[in-house]
Amino acid sequence: MIMLYSSALGFTTILDLLGTFAFAVSGIRWASTKKFDWFGAYVIGLVTAIGGGTTRDLLLNVTPFWMQDATYLIITGVALLATLLFRNGLFRWGRALFLFDSIGLGLFTVVGIGKSLEAGFPFWVCIMMGAITGSVGGVIRDVLLNEIPLLFRKDIYALACIAGGIVYMICYRSGLSASLTELLAALTVISIRIIAVRYHVQLPFLKPLHPDPDNKEDKE
Amino acid sequence: MIMLYSSALGFTTILDLLGTFAFAVSGIRWASTKKFDWFGAYVIGLVTAIGGGTTRDLLLNVTPFWMQDATYLIITGVALLATLLFRNGLFRWGRALFLFDSIGLGLFTVVGIGKSLEAGFPFWVCIMMGAITGSVGGVIRDVLLNEIPLLFRKDIYALACIAGGIVYMICYRSGLSASLTELLAALTVISIRIIAVRYHVQLPFLKPLHPDPDNKEDKE
Amino acid sequence: MIMLYSSALGFTTILDLLGTFAFAVSGIRWASTKKFDWFGAYVIGLVTAIGGGTTRDLLLNVTPFWMQDATYLIITGVALLATLLFRNGLFRWGRALFLFDSIGLGLFTVVGIGKSLEAGFPFWVCIMMGAITGSVGGVIRDVLLNEIPLLFRKDIYALACIAGGIVYMICYRSGLSASLTELLAALTVISIRIIAVRYHVQLPFLKPLHPDPDNKEDKE
Repeated sequence: MIMLYSSALGFTTILDLLGTFAFAVSGIRWASTKKFDWFGAYVIGLVTAIGGGTTRDLLLNVTPFWMQDATYLIITGVALLATLLFRNGLFRWGRALFLFDSIGLGLFTVVGIGKSLEAGFPFWVCIMMGAITGSVGGVIRDVLLNEIPLLFRKDIYALACIAGGIVYMICYRSGLSASLTELLAALTVISIRIIAVRYHVQLPFLKPLHPDPDNKEDKE
Repeated sequence: MIMLYSSALGFTTILDLLGTFAFAVSGIRWASTKKFDWFGAYVIGLVTAIGGGTTRDLLLNVTPFWMQDATYLIITGVALLATLLFRNGLFRWGRALFLFDSIGLGLFTVVGIGKSLEAGFPFWVCIMMGAITGSVGGVIRDVLLNEIPLLFRKDIYALACIAGGIVYMICYRSGLSASLTELLAALTVISIRIIAVRYHVQLPFLKPLHPDPDNKEDKE
Repeated sequence: MIMLYSSALGFTTILDLLGTFAFAVSGIRWASTKKFDWFGAYVIGLVTAIGGGTTRDLLLNVTPFWMQDATYLIITGVALLATLLFRNGLFRWGRALFLFDSIGLGLFTVVGIGKSLEAGFPFWVCIMMGAITGSVGGVIRDVLLNEIPLLFRKDIYALACIAGGIVYMICYRSGLSASLTELLAALTVISIRIIAVRYHVQLPFLKPLHPDPDNKEDKE
């Protein structure tokens, strides 16, 4: 599946690069709000793009994917260059960037599930690995920027990966071809993500719990 | 020892589940002070419960324990459900939760030491792995909540694990049975932890160091 | 190369210990600004000293170096003791500490590259591993202290490691002896670092990017 992914499907490879580009731009954009220098912005872009897959690979006990292929470092460099050259002009493409980001999320999820299945893990682990691949990069980005991770307040991100993972598993068990399984799972992630953002779909928030229930003010 | 731990000792398994539950509730409770949604609260609860053992397993280069047994994910779900259903009522059980938490700390420490001994590491590494198993989950929780980890200001947490580790090693070298060794070590952790909290035992604080000794005000 | 490093070159070993000491003191000094207790200060000192090498070893899928040699834990203890005993007096040696820190950076970089080459990785991965070995400890320190990592605003730190890595690779490919290659690479790191600090050499900063280009104020 991975072989198929990286050689035959040129179309998938292009989508993977676009997803990486969108993730890196998102990191660089956030870094720019914190007065980072160019090198710092590059690091944040890189971590956003590869952090999820690296966490997955460490948990699966395999060599992180970006240590076997310099493409991800180069794409991040291109993202930094594009940001420096076009600056805010880049964000006229806001809608395209959001689309790339959603496509990246769908692909990263599918790649994460495929790698975990190959490593022989049970389904529920594979679904978690798909969600980790898609969402942990953004969490590390937010931690490095000294912010509370957006993920914990904008849940439909990781939940979209989990829904895609469930679709993947149903297709896989039903004996669908690998390509069709991957396509349906990725489309699930992408469409849930787009619908959630467009219609502001959110999970309920957890109300503050106090040791003393009479103390109701929220200090945040 | 691990086999013994996970199959024969039904009592230990129950204590492990109670410990996991208490760690997860502590994470969810903290998450509630930051306006997290249900999914974010679940992730924080899970990370608090499994973060220490995962760090240990990555350092020992073995597959993280929760990827081989879905129990920990389920217990965290139960903790979230209990929090949503009983809300502040849950904290009328405050003393029970603290007891579970201390028991969890003792057990996690003992499990961490046992796994490291089996992997063939020297004693001082095993003691560190015990402390990492017990305390790193809370550190990751605090980092994700954008707070300075409590651990660094309320030391008796990790030091209790280290004391338990030393007791473990003395018993182990004296030829005591595995069960008795584990019991004594866990009891050491639990009692030091309870005594430290009840009597507010603390290590001295480090006074601020300034490059310029004339500049004495603390800017924090 | 590692064997050579750890056995024959007594001089290198002494420099490694001085570097570890300087990294640990830097961590403890920062911890003191946050009212940490002694144990917390020790942990921050340790993480600053071993965090980079540990990250490298996890990525290379080998056992972290400090789990095979207790020296690093002991040196950190010595650093804490020295800080408690001499307090601000220690910082009259400010220039010496900065020199140790720069030497440590150079050595850590060279050790990181050597270990990665031995593990059979391509050159660009080895250069990244050198930079990770030298700089990630400080990033983890800053995350635990709830600060934005200095690295992202004071780039010449990690870039010095990368420059040293490039020199290493040129010498290595030119067939120079291992000792001379390591010496030249370390000297590159050390001199770039010292020059950057003395003459305040910095990369340009990334200007804030706003989705709405009319909104120019920086909220930080």
